[in-house]
Amino acid sequence: MVNTLYLPEIREMLQDGESKQLLEFCTALHPARTAEFMEGLSADESWQVLMHADLATRVEIFSYFEHDKQLDILSTQNRDQLAELIGQVAADDRVDVLDALDEEIVKDLLSRLHIDDRRDILRLSQYPEGTAGSMMTSQFAQVHASCTVRQALEELSRQAEELETIYYLYIIDDDDHLQGVVSARRLVASMTRPDRKLSDLMETKVMSVNVAEDQEEVINRVAKLDLLAIPVVDDQYRVLGIITHDDVIDAMREVATEDAHRAGAVNPLEDSYLKTAIFTLCWKRGIWLVVLFFFAQLTALALSRYDAELAMFAWLIPFIPLVTSSGGNTGSQSATLIITALSQGHVTVRDWRRIAFRELLMGVILGSVLGAIGYMVALVWGHDSASATVIPITLLFVVVAGTITGSALPLIFKRIGWDPALMSNPLVAGIVDILGIVIYLNVAILLLAKT
Amino acid sequence: MVNTLYLPEIREMLQDGESKQLLEFCTALHPARTAEFMEGLSADESWQVLMHADLATRVEIFSYFEHDKQLDILSTQNRDQLAELIGQVAADDRVDVLDALDEEIVKDLLSRLHIDDRRDILRLSQYPEGTAGSMMTSQFAQVHASCTVRQALEELSRQAEELETIYYLYIIDDDDHLQGVVSARRLVASMTRPDRKLSDLMETKVMSVNVAEDQEEVINRVAKLDLLAIPVVDDQYRVLGIITHDDVIDAMREVATEDAHRAGAVNPLEDSYLKTAIFTLCWKRGIWLVVLFFFAQLTALALSRYDAELAMFAWLIPFIPLVTSSGGNTGSQSATLIITALSQGHVTVRDWRRIAFRELLMGVILGSVLGAIGYMVALVWGHDSASATVIPITLLFVVVAGTITGSALPLIFKRIGWDPALMSNPLVAGIVDILGIVIYLNVAILLLAKT
Repeated sequence: MVNTLYLPEIREMLQDGESKQLLEFCTALHPARTAEFMEGLSADESWQVLMHADLATRVEIFSYFEHDKQLDILSTQNRDQLAELIGQVAADDRVDVLDALDEEIVKDLLSRLHIDDRRDILRLSQYPEGTAGSMMTSQFAQVHASCTVRQALEELSRQAEELETIYYLYIIDDDDHLQGVVSARRLVASMTRPDRKLSDLMETKVMSVNVAEDQEEVINRVAKLDLLAIPVVDDQYRVLGIITHDDVIDAMREVATEDAHRAGAVNPLEDSYLKTAIFTLCWKRGIWLVVLFFFAQLTALALSRYDAELAMFAWLIPFIPLVTSSGGNTGSQSATLIITALSQGHVTVRDWRRIAFRELLMGVILGSVLGAIGYMVALVWGHDSASATVIPITLLFVVVAGTITGSALPLIFKRIGWDPALMSNPLVAGIVDILGIVIYLNVAILLLAKT
Repeated sequence: MVNTLYLPEIREMLQDGESKQLLEFCTALHPARTAEFMEGLSADESWQVLMHADLATRVEIFSYFEHDKQLDILSTQNRDQLAELIGQVAADDRVDVLDALDEEIVKDLLSRLHIDDRRDILRLSQYPEGTAGSMMTSQFAQVHASCTVRQALEELSRQAEELETIYYLYIIDDDDHLQGVVSARRLVASMTRPDRKLSDLMETKVMSVNVAEDQEEVINRVAKLDLLAIPVVDDQYRVLGIITHDDVIDAMREVATEDAHRAGAVNPLEDSYLKTAIFTLCWKRGIWLVVLFFFAQLTALALSRYDAELAMFAWLIPFIPLVTSSGGNTGSQSATLIITALSQGHVTVRDWRRIAFRELLMGVILGSVLGAIGYMVALVWGHDSASATVIPITLLFVVVAGTITGSALPLIFKRIGWDPALMSNPLVAGIVDILGIVIYLNVAILLLAKT
């Protein structure tokens, strides 16, 4: 929902060149709110409004703009003014935006930046998407262990405005190796003894992540340890940057949404639902629908092989959806449970024996329950008790096939290095459907052929 | 995976009463790691180990134990020692654990606590699960606006060890009304002018949440604003507590996992997969399987009404799974897209017209594509072009029925105040299946009866 409340006023102010009122608009509210009220403005208009605020406010409001709007502005506005802005945007955020921008424009913008900023951007943008490196910022507080509390506080006070977080002070040696960490909390608590060395205060048991580690690993560690930030180190344990809590929160949201979309057989959207073009949405859904259609065709093929039997025992036909959906549903459940447990680190591929045992047992229990209900349904529908037996026996086998297949597929994907989340609910259901048909009709042939 | 590496050593140390070594074990590593190494120990053993450490370390390691182990320890160990521990556990964490504990034990433990702690626990535990109130802690830094920078720093320095976060200082008036906030960053940056009043420094545009607001709202706001903590206020804008970033991260994980489980038609687990009893898992899955079985039965009923037509046109039978799964899959996709967009605040129920239009259009596009493929499949299978037309026309209608139903159901649930996430992928698929059968056979009758 775009907030259109102030749009006419803002446009009028722009037309009349009311500098004072525009500045007032930029500073009267929390920058997140200001950004919200500007959602309906074009890139041109938004930039014009921002030019009436001082640089710091401009950067703040810009940071709250939607990703698309940021790109729009960076692609169309005055490059020198943009470079000035980029110089002040948080180190990790600007890399994310520039990564999505046209290469020509990035080159031109970089050439207008201060050399330190340029180097920083190039350094941060070299890490592949989805790794700890791609999440980190280079703006963190680092000092030497020989520093005193007073010196550290003075240093922090001087740098406070530039740093992404001042809440952890990382202690490094001459070769940038991580030695310890002192929290601002600890520092403030030690203000009464300003001459104490940081080496006496520092926590040496520091949790860190390797720059190449997966972002899911980072999320799990920060979530478990309740950290404000976690240092990112290379293989030699040198600090390259830090990942702050807000980036972890952003990554968690992204991962959760991606996983939800995958579970529903939609290729993850890059933007929100209403902002994604219909054609893009069709593509992200269509590609999966076609894959699923292929599996459904296999089911159809399996069914068509039994047309003689189906003609003979026509009463089996209405039970087809009952049988296939029971297998598909238990399969979806198992896949969901294993995929979430894998992503949170609650199970690993090495637990496969325990998982197989649990799923087998659950398959037998759940299959028996559904089988019992199915048997009663078949009797109520007027089938004789001998024929009706086909239904519970089929359901038992189909449900077990569902739990085993649904839990095995994500584990196999994980094992061969694919994303287990690709095993969407519809895909698992589609695969189990084929098994369901084959089990159903073979059970029927075995039991009914005798009579 | 339980880490069993040190278990034999720890047990030996316990048996031999090696106090010094046990203390060493408790303090040598990061408390999160220590807790990990103790995972395989019983509640009794764990508590014995902890009793060798000082209270602060004991509290830290205890906080990293799994929820179940915490409950186990609290239910079985010495109440006076436990009360001492609870007195030091973070205000919001202890409420979460006590909430899950037997009422008798809680009463007894509370009676052994300091009156301030007792009151604090009772106050925090009155807020219903899932609200902002249930997430907040009462341990935050609050000062009066007339305070100076020096006074504020001294106050922080004094309280630093007790507070959940010192990174925001909330400025309140005499009646506890929220007036502004000063970040520790701002405070440290202002150290050079220690006599400045906080009223000059404070940010008055403070974002807050109401104590009764939903946790999803809290998550969305903190995620959007990149906050370390957000104040919780009552209807009179008095500060009751704060919610810190780590609680937001925990809540996000919980919500994401719950939503994933619901999407896969599993009632959300309270514990991790391997730690949940098989019987509990069966119950959480079985209840949904039975509901889904009911819908599948309706599909079976619908099918059985057309047995005369199916006997006449037996070639339609193998296409049944193709038709129903296409509808079910598009329905799952639409439901997934709308449920995630609703939970992130990207769409509201009031957007229903736009959503309906988009889904209708996508249904037509995707239905046409699948229809075209389906038509070719039918031709390849040797059906004459007139009969084969049944397939594409059916697919078009079924896919549109899928997109419309899949997107409408979560919106309707939201509108009547139910959780849209209850509309799991299998449930949407099951409902659309019924429509699919009815559409399929009516299209077939209309087209084939003529010939």
